[in-house]
Amino acid sequence: MSRLSELFRVRAGALPELAVGIGDDAAVLELPGARTLVWTSDACVEGVHFDRAWLSLEDVGWRSFQAAVSDVAAMGGRALAALSNVVLPAADAQAELVALARGQAEAARKARCPIIGGNLSRGGELSVTTTVLGECEKPLLRSGARAGDELWLIGDVGLARAGLELLRSGRAARSKALKRCVEAFRRPLARLDQSASLARAARAALDVSDGLAGDAARLADASGVRVVFEEAALRGALAPELDLAARAVRVPALELALYGGEDYALLAAGPAAQRPRTARRIGRVERGRGTVLEHAGGGATRLADGFDHLGVRSTTTSGRRRASRRL
Amino acid sequence: MSRLSELFRVRAGALPELAVGIGDDAAVLELPGARTLVWTSDACVEGVHFDRAWLSLEDVGWRSFQAAVSDVAAMGGRALAALSNVVLPAADAQAELVALARGQAEAARKARCPIIGGNLSRGGELSVTTTVLGECEKPLLRSGARAGDELWLIGDVGLARAGLELLRSGRAARSKALKRCVEAFRRPLARLDQSASLARAARAALDVSDGLAGDAARLADASGVRVVFEEAALRGALAPELDLAARAVRVPALELALYGGEDYALLAAGPAAQRPRTARRIGRVERGRGTVLEHAGGGATRLADGFDHLGVRSTTTSGRRRASRRL
Repeated sequence: MSRLSELFRVRAGALPELAVGIGDDAAVLELPGARTLVWTSDACVEGVHFDRAWLSLEDVGWRSFQAAVSDVAAMGGRALAALSNVVLPAADAQAELVALARGQAEAARKARCPIIGGNLSRGGELSVTTTVLGECEKPLLRSGARAGDELWLIGDVGLARAGLELLRSGRAARSKALKRCVEAFRRPLARLDQSASLARAARAALDVSDGLAGDAARLADASGVRVVFEEAALRGALAPELDLAARAVRVPALELALYGGEDYALLAAGPAAQRPRTARRIGRVERGRGTVLEHAGGGATRLADGFDHLGVRSTTTSGRRRASRRL
Repeated sequence: MSRLSELFRVRAGALPELAVGIGDDAAVLELPGARTLVWTSDACVEGVHFDRAWLSLEDVGWRSFQAAVSDVAAMGGRALAALSNVVLPAADAQAELVALARGQAEAARKARCPIIGGNLSRGGELSVTTTVLGECEKPLLRSGARAGDELWLIGDVGLARAGLELLRSGRAARSKALKRCVEAFRRPLARLDQSASLARAARAALDVSDGLAGDAARLADASGVRVVFEEAALRGALAPELDLAARAVRVPALELALYGGEDYALLAAGPAAQRPRTARRIGRVERGRGTVLEHAGGGATRLADGFDHLGVRSTTTSGRRRASRRL
């Protein structure tokens, strides 16, 4: 895919306002005399990113919006406003569109990020592309992690995947723990509430959309470092509900945490002394390359991007791996 | 569709920076201490907005980009930067993606509006959603036309539709005029070069994406006025190639002009004394409602939005009417 990014590569001086281009969670524009803008867009395509068997159209609207604003949170930004592009199949009527829009509008209210325009098209498959403009003091990039930093997790991971597996299994979510997982899958919440404190404390961050292992690999790659998950610390940082759900869906909790995506937690790196109250330490940053899981009982496993033993490496509802990639 | 816009309606005070929301060519944000931003997004879906039978993937990339920046031109703005969201079917390989991106990058260079990010997803059908951020001194809205204004056309109309009809007919485009029509269809050009002078002179504008008749109806509706096309003036403003092409495709030139879209000309209204050198007068603005064609020989026809007698009212390559609508 390198040729594509070469085609789009912005020549130096082409846009004086451009601070960060292709390759991070969002583009960054520094307008003279104004605040620094972060700008991102995200597409959710039926059959690839979501399946109506498990989600209502309200859920689809909500999730697509959260996925987009999560990129602003990952940049340490505040979401300002959004545009919504919906492609609607002919089989869907006004009622479907209203349900979808209701979910989007709900998410927009929660994020205090109004939808101020967009476009509605006919098409063969339902898709929602949301573009968000935010602002920040100083953008929090993927590339700032340094050896010696702690690795932080803000928010929960694995719950959304557990919720999906539960829905797929056809079992009812009777316990509070299982209900929470289904809710995490249907109604994830971008961590916009944490972005300001994280921006002050962290050196690097991204949102966990594809699973901890894959997103940590991106952080490691962008920063030119090795990311080490410490198993004991990581287990300690997981939600208590995850263990219960893991047993119910018969996938180890650690697998769900490392390879389940779409919770929109934040993964960050920063100095120990600056760790925010809401961030949980789950490992460290070292010199080197790639990502490693250091086992509680000694020894370590090198993690391949998205690799796992249990077939849950896909983060999408269709079972495809890496259904999307940021340019 | 009113319920949808109600769902998204921005409450007063929800976003102090918002100057113009849903309903114009682009949203307008006024950032304190900064320039006024215009922000728009546009989707092009295979089988709805384009057909690979008549267009190369380079053309598709080019056109999708022009369609998006044209909204910035219509607001009297300058395009700053763009994000590109591509949904690519599994049948398409890297070569197809590179061809598409090449067309986008070419258009971006021409518009001096670099693509600084975006997203690539798998999906069942090819679609390109482009979101553009621009800036302007004072946004040129659809709602500013007043009785007494002249009606102006900037750029050509009908040529792109003639080009498409020619391609569909299977006839070779041998003459220079026919070649120009095919080129107008494959490589339309947003009138960004005219937007600054138009912003100073006009009271209202929009881009002609769906055909003069339909877009004039939107201008009339937003401004609460009647738009009168004067047949003689309109005929005088058409490109000489259109008459030749009209005969070749057996559709009257006036029908192509009124109901053919996708040339991305600009339609504007303003005081006679301020008409820019590049704007051609094609009618006037009156008190009243709707759009009227005043015939050269006397009499007038009320134009329905998108209605015509010759089956060319659709502006899309699939023959569907109003394949998209701005929220």
